[in-house]
Amino acid sequence: MTYCVGLLVEAGLVVIADTRTNAGIDNISIFKKLHILADESDRLIIAASAGSLSVTQSALSMIEEGLPGDHDSDPLHTLDDARTMFRAAQMVGQALSAAKRAIGATLHGTSINASASILLGGRIGDEPLTLYQIYAEGNFIECQSDAPFLQIGELKYGKPILDRALTWASPLDEVVKAALISFDATIRSNLSVGLPLDLIIVPTDPKAPTIRRRIEEEDPYFNELSATWGRLLNEARTQIPDPPFLTA
Amino acid sequence: MTYCVGLLVEAGLVVIADTRTNAGIDNISIFKKLHILADESDRLIIAASAGSLSVTQSALSMIEEGLPGDHDSDPLHTLDDARTMFRAAQMVGQALSAAKRAIGATLHGTSINASASILLGGRIGDEPLTLYQIYAEGNFIECQSDAPFLQIGELKYGKPILDRALTWASPLDEVVKAALISFDATIRSNLSVGLPLDLIIVPTDPKAPTIRRRIEEEDPYFNELSATWGRLLNEARTQIPDPPFLTA
Repeated sequence: MTYCVGLLVEAGLVVIADTRTNAGIDNISIFKKLHILADESDRLIIAASAGSLSVTQSALSMIEEGLPGDHDSDPLHTLDDARTMFRAAQMVGQALSAAKRAIGATLHGTSINASASILLGGRIGDEPLTLYQIYAEGNFIECQSDAPFLQIGELKYGKPILDRALTWASPLDEVVKAALISFDATIRSNLSVGLPLDLIIVPTDPKAPTIRRRIEEEDPYFNELSATWGRLLNEARTQIPDPPFLTA
Repeated sequence: MTYCVGLLVEAGLVVIADTRTNAGIDNISIFKKLHILADESDRLIIAASAGSLSVTQSALSMIEEGLPGDHDSDPLHTLDDARTMFRAAQMVGQALSAAKRAIGATLHGTSINASASILLGGRIGDEPLTLYQIYAEGNFIECQSDAPFLQIGELKYGKPILDRALTWASPLDEVVKAALISFDATIRSNLSVGLPLDLIIVPTDPKAPTIRRRIEEEDPYFNELSATWGRLLNEARTQIPDPPFLTA
């Protein structure tokens, strides 16, 4: 399993992915699921992937090698050719759907699931930061300001804190804290999601630097956040009045 | 969908169930899922059900009518005959599994799921309060003090707060508050879980009264708990130090 979240607010884009992959419960490994697909002066394109690792790795390799055009004589397309993030999302969708079809066919008759999904975020040229969730069939949705985040993988444990915490106006530090709390809740409840976490922060201001970080097992800030959050939650709960039907 | 939680701590047993049932997304109704199966001087047996409503209703009706013994000439067994909660759990498991098999056979070839599960809690005679989770196949597990709660239905959204909040030593008022916060998180994130909630509190002290309550849509305490919790969560998050990689 996997948990990835992308958060798009007025101040910028944050994408975080865990790194735990398991083939059965007794075969657990660390695989990077946050990928920089393009990092040029005119474009920064980030992908986070969940689902069948063979499908998402194939899809990303196909994008890197280049996708075929409509005619055999057309040159291969890569993300360097994409003029907009919408076009980049179409290309990633095309690759993901092709990888799922090809690998899914070989898995026919087994109980192995070839489903997968990708969060794709970034910016091309002067267009605003955008964030897409791309489904295994290649279709996709775009993150909008009413619900400024998208999740893939093991998403339910960490959703309530995001539902409560985030608005389009949230500053980046609060967005990152809420997202890390969401990961902490997920990691505690589901063994198939685990540290290290890969994190990237892209401020809306193009002059502000992009921040990339891997949060390792013994990261002092993440450990403090987890412990402090647990203590504050318990303090908060005791501040809520007792149920009247119990004290009566 | 449904969300039910049973919490068994040193101070007592709490069982809460929502009442929303849907057949597709456009057919939503209120059905009671918290049932008092026995309420006599020597026994109190409570069930909360999730999954196929036709299966759980059939199972509960079979238990009420009485289950057949090993021989046709044996009298029917009801929960009034159970000498222990373990035996009551076996009977409920037998009924649930029979209902699932019978209804599942009629649903063969459709995409309708005949799966269901039941939380069974209570006390018979002088034995301690116990809580079981009964699966559709009739097997069951017993709640123990290391993880003093069991959940069925749409359980993931509301699990992190219970993981953080509850120990065997938690007092009943904190248990009820944590459980209601867990329901609030689930209701906010999943439309298929909704008010009213049915709640029962059985103190360990047999002389203390059992508390039963329905929390309706406009329950002032639940609304205040939800609003206060949201405010306290946001205050707690702002108390966590900013990520060092953002402030640097």
